[in-house]
Amino acid sequence: MTRYFTEDTSVEAVNARMGEDIDPRLKTVMASLVTHLHAFAKDVDLRQEEWDFAIDFLTKTGQICSQERQEFILLSDVLGFSMLVDAINNRRPSQATENTVFGPFHVDNAPIREMGDTISLDGKGERCRYEGRVMDLHGAPIEGACVDVWSDNADSFYDVQQPDIQPKWNNRGRFFTGKDGRYLFYGIKPVSYPIPDDGPVGKMLSALGRHPYRPAHMHYLVTAPGFQKIVTHTFVGDDKYIADDAVFGVKETLIAPFEYVNDGETIWRSPFDFVMVPAAEPVS
Amino acid sequence: MTRYFTEDTSVEAVNARMGEDIDPRLKTVMASLVTHLHAFAKDVDLRQEEWDFAIDFLTKTGQICSQERQEFILLSDVLGFSMLVDAINNRRPSQATENTVFGPFHVDNAPIREMGDTISLDGKGERCRYEGRVMDLHGAPIEGACVDVWSDNADSFYDVQQPDIQPKWNNRGRFFTGKDGRYLFYGIKPVSYPIPDDGPVGKMLSALGRHPYRPAHMHYLVTAPGFQKIVTHTFVGDDKYIADDAVFGVKETLIAPFEYVNDGETIWRSPFDFVMVPAAEPVS
Repeated sequence: MTRYFTEDTSVEAVNARMGEDIDPRLKTVMASLVTHLHAFAKDVDLRQEEWDFAIDFLTKTGQICSQERQEFILLSDVLGFSMLVDAINNRRPSQATENTVFGPFHVDNAPIREMGDTISLDGKGERCRYEGRVMDLHGAPIEGACVDVWSDNADSFYDVQQPDIQPKWNNRGRFFTGKDGRYLFYGIKPVSYPIPDDGPVGKMLSALGRHPYRPAHMHYLVTAPGFQKIVTHTFVGDDKYIADDAVFGVKETLIAPFEYVNDGETIWRSPFDFVMVPAAEPVS
Repeated sequence: MTRYFTEDTSVEAVNARMGEDIDPRLKTVMASLVTHLHAFAKDVDLRQEEWDFAIDFLTKTGQICSQERQEFILLSDVLGFSMLVDAINNRRPSQATENTVFGPFHVDNAPIREMGDTISLDGKGERCRYEGRVMDLHGAPIEGACVDVWSDNADSFYDVQQPDIQPKWNNRGRFFTGKDGRYLFYGIKPVSYPIPDDGPVGKMLSALGRHPYRPAHMHYLVTAPGFQKIVTHTFVGDDKYIADDAVFGVKETLIAPFEYVNDGETIWRSPFDFVMVPAAEPVS
């Protein structure tokens, strides 16, 4: 029994150093992190030059971050870590709507629109009617739910990625449900797009033989007083990337119908109902 | 069996995405990293707000890095990860000198000095004679070995941390052994010091109830043609931080004698021999 760090006792040596009076949750989380990080290095006999590479990779990942870009979230996303944390934190009854990753392109306080309005303001893309209900677990409509939606444009960009292009707030909007819990708006049928791949994470994906594409989807943030918020997308099922989303966001239950209508008013129609869980409901 | 990511199948979902023709070592390392990262999140049921905190922490850690500061190395150091990787990569026969962390304060091409010279140029601190032999595993002296040494000054700073203070190259130097393999130089008895703790890693240490101090040590980088390089320190055994080095660098065999001499020529004497392993020797 040595007082000092050795390869065999590395985890115990580090974790024994934590103070007695620290936050117990912090202690639990850090002890587990150290355990798994050390197990990783031991599993693969991590080489010195690989450690050097990792230090440089993490540094570059931090340094490319800015107000407009969050490369560590991207890293977490492509490693499936974001989806895992989302899953752990949003375990719901099977009839409730599932969550998926929030993504970096949401903007607070998008314009509040009337039911039936269109969020696609640039005249590009294939028009699509989005409609459905917001309900509780018993199928009762939820009044006053906020349905906050956003998608990319026909050129695969979110408005925040093209800040100089008018009109503002293209393909975004908030809709509040009435007594019937129904929502209805017009947008475009979204298209697939690559996550930003000109930084360290893009280089990593390339080295791993992976593409950076996400299958087409409409984003939803559904909130209502007394209910757990739903952060999700609905996906276009016949998208070529549906089975290999770069960030693992697709869930079976989130693939929505996109029905070809082409009736003069709209080309596509995508019906989808949201089922919310009471805020008090245990999450696991 | 679903095609999509679930909490239960998260590791398989991510690792199955890697290409067939990628570098096999990269595949092994990344598969293990994903396995352990996901196991960590599942072990502690990582909360969404903890993930948010981690993203922010990693971003700040990257953004404080500069030419003069490497906060990710510091993070690796205080988690015992640097020492673990060093141990994995430098497994040696028991009679050979052990490695420890390199640290961020080495400078290439320090002045080459004559045996018996002093590296302490500012007249501060308690003078100490450092002497010993550089040998192979059979005790034979190694000629032409480079003994590259550096330490902090009496105020706990390395010269690179005080770039405006003269003289240059204080407490640094390189010595080349002759036929007898002996080295001899004068420096000061080093003092303990804190690692930089005004950034994210310092905040983390504080939250963990840990101090940022390293026990006093003299750095050595010993190289010789045909031998594995030795990256190590010798430690002052009665230092108050000897049993809780903030970066876990202390090994029993690296605690050197610091003998009180006070004979007019020197106050302290620290003898230490270096035993090198042939470059061809298997490392495990």
